[in-house]
Amino acid sequence: MVGAVKRVAVLGSTGSIGRQTLDVIRSIPQRFRVVGLAAGKNLKLLAGQVEEFRPEFIGCPSEDADIEQLKHSVDIKNNLLSLEEIAASPEVDIVVMATSGKAGLRPLLAALRAGKDVALANKESLVSAGEIITAEVKQNSARIRPVDSEHSAIWQCLSGENKEAARIILTASGGPFRQFSPERLAEVTPAQALQHPSWRMGKKVTIDSATLMNKGLEVIEAHWLFHTPYGRIDVLVHPQSIIHSMVEFVDGSIKAQLSYPDMRLPIQYALTYPERLPNPRLPRLDWSLVRSLDFEMPDYDKFPCLRLAIEAGKQGGTCPAVLCAADEVAVELFLAGRIRFNDIAGIIARTLEQHQVVASPTLEEIEAADAWAREMLLKTAGGVK
Amino acid sequence: MVGAVKRVAVLGSTGSIGRQTLDVIRSIPQRFRVVGLAAGKNLKLLAGQVEEFRPEFIGCPSEDADIEQLKHSVDIKNNLLSLEEIAASPEVDIVVMATSGKAGLRPLLAALRAGKDVALANKESLVSAGEIITAEVKQNSARIRPVDSEHSAIWQCLSGENKEAARIILTASGGPFRQFSPERLAEVTPAQALQHPSWRMGKKVTIDSATLMNKGLEVIEAHWLFHTPYGRIDVLVHPQSIIHSMVEFVDGSIKAQLSYPDMRLPIQYALTYPERLPNPRLPRLDWSLVRSLDFEMPDYDKFPCLRLAIEAGKQGGTCPAVLCAADEVAVELFLAGRIRFNDIAGIIARTLEQHQVVASPTLEEIEAADAWAREMLLKTAGGVK
Repeated sequence: MVGAVKRVAVLGSTGSIGRQTLDVIRSIPQRFRVVGLAAGKNLKLLAGQVEEFRPEFIGCPSEDADIEQLKHSVDIKNNLLSLEEIAASPEVDIVVMATSGKAGLRPLLAALRAGKDVALANKESLVSAGEIITAEVKQNSARIRPVDSEHSAIWQCLSGENKEAARIILTASGGPFRQFSPERLAEVTPAQALQHPSWRMGKKVTIDSATLMNKGLEVIEAHWLFHTPYGRIDVLVHPQSIIHSMVEFVDGSIKAQLSYPDMRLPIQYALTYPERLPNPRLPRLDWSLVRSLDFEMPDYDKFPCLRLAIEAGKQGGTCPAVLCAADEVAVELFLAGRIRFNDIAGIIARTLEQHQVVASPTLEEIEAADAWAREMLLKTAGGVK
Repeated sequence: MVGAVKRVAVLGSTGSIGRQTLDVIRSIPQRFRVVGLAAGKNLKLLAGQVEEFRPEFIGCPSEDADIEQLKHSVDIKNNLLSLEEIAASPEVDIVVMATSGKAGLRPLLAALRAGKDVALANKESLVSAGEIITAEVKQNSARIRPVDSEHSAIWQCLSGENKEAARIILTASGGPFRQFSPERLAEVTPAQALQHPSWRMGKKVTIDSATLMNKGLEVIEAHWLFHTPYGRIDVLVHPQSIIHSMVEFVDGSIKAQLSYPDMRLPIQYALTYPERLPNPRLPRLDWSLVRSLDFEMPDYDKFPCLRLAIEAGKQGGTCPAVLCAADEVAVELFLAGRIRFNDIAGIIARTLEQHQVVASPTLEEIEAADAWAREMLLKTAGGVK
């Protein structure tokens, strides 16, 4: 079967998800054309990607001195555009939002307003501005295709079902410190926290996985993506990361999606949906090696970030934006050796406590809450230090 | 939401699946009307069911003395019909084929020729006459809705997918003797074999589960139901019987369907498809109790019936009919204490060896092969005794 060629823009092409997206496209090149690439760092790698894929549009920080070099390193005429311009371009069919942090929010909204299909890996935008994003999706008949392995699993399990989920069971590896005592947890170093047992990912999300903040953010994402109340989203620890999530239906039947942990599978599904394509580079699960899939309830006391996130999600308004911003700064402080692992949850909690929540905020109010949280946390952290 | 009332005929209403079908209908009575009930044994229970559900049509063996009593035990005018007449009646929307053994084949064909939706629990008909049944389904735009938990799981996993399965992973509890040594296996009594670890079922299928013949028959069923070559159907032992089966797609993604082992769920799904309805009587999986799902490869040497069945399926023609008939008699002999547990596979194998295979057989050739096998096996078993 020959399908139409889809024109793809990858925003955040030099990060972990961006690189794996290009790897998927390399495996099935007949189905995709890369028309846009954008990155905020690692312009050398971006130059190499531009040379290989020869996109029409390039996005990168205009104040950077490397840009001139980037422009000269490729012999095709490229248009330097902003992320929002690339996301909304009529030349683009699918936008892969692989930037991390708050930088993804405005380009995401631009893509949705242009009615694009968006393969969404940027977690912070949906967490911070779920209500605004959901409204834009609806208003513009745009579609979000989740790229997170958990949300891709839920999306796959819901495929072909007439009704929404009765319950979402979001699985969590439990991170590298699942079996640590509170005493050992207090002594965790950045180097230890960067060793994830199942997934190779960027630094921010790896630390978030160790604190279970990542799972909390995913609960908020699932709430918005699948229109499911928080009371019907459960977190279940599953250390092998083979079941990526499950959906329970009204009759009690549960569907699960499984695979070896490899981000290229959810990325590819988001790109090829509603089709599935063979890709010899994707590993197959070998059941003679999988002896057991284990499950346990999450420990909310040992990993307070999980509860913090779910409570911020339930509170709504500007709370999740504050949670996200505070977490981003706290993780940076931890990686820089300025705070301890156990301080992360505490300073996020204190930031949330001091926040004046705005209900149903505008984009500007969300951005203001984000800025406020960063400033507040740096003050608080100054006190910790 | 209010859906249309579906008119259901339950053929084999006094057996395990038949009784559980009526239990499901009792739970959601607003959606179903029982218009036909039929049973070959236990006419007392049938009389009770007739009294409760007041069907238009009743099927039962006409030579039985209890019939007059049955007719007098209900005060409505009932029509005694053959199973084929009930199955093909214009008053029936869905036929639940819950008879066991070869008695189900002709009524099934009658239902399919009348273009009915058939909820199929009778395994032997599809195993014996898969080619004929598949052709009738296609020709008459009839539909088979599998009721076996494994095939229901596969069907649910395929829902919403554009393509067929790349691989079917049929799970098996492994039966009560999974961990028995060959020596202990030789000494197994009927009473032991009737204790299944996960499922409450009829006697025949319980013994078939202990020999793994049941799983072999299910491989043949899966082949016909999902148009999947034998080389792409794997059997995986999963003692907890919580994952009911899995489907792997071309991209390596796997979907699994899970629930507590309770036949009422696949029965209800077959009745309500494509909808799902809440049913408070169906148990919910409690993940705080499910600590582990275990897997192992099946032991084809210890359970030779599994290989026998798959090989008979691959050979095709009249082989699966002979397999089915020989197994039915062998199980009866075992339950009667006339042969030992380990003899079951041996005498089925000898019957198959002596069979002159007819390729692409007619219904009459299938029935002749069935009769031949029963006669041959009784002779062989006479030798064993």
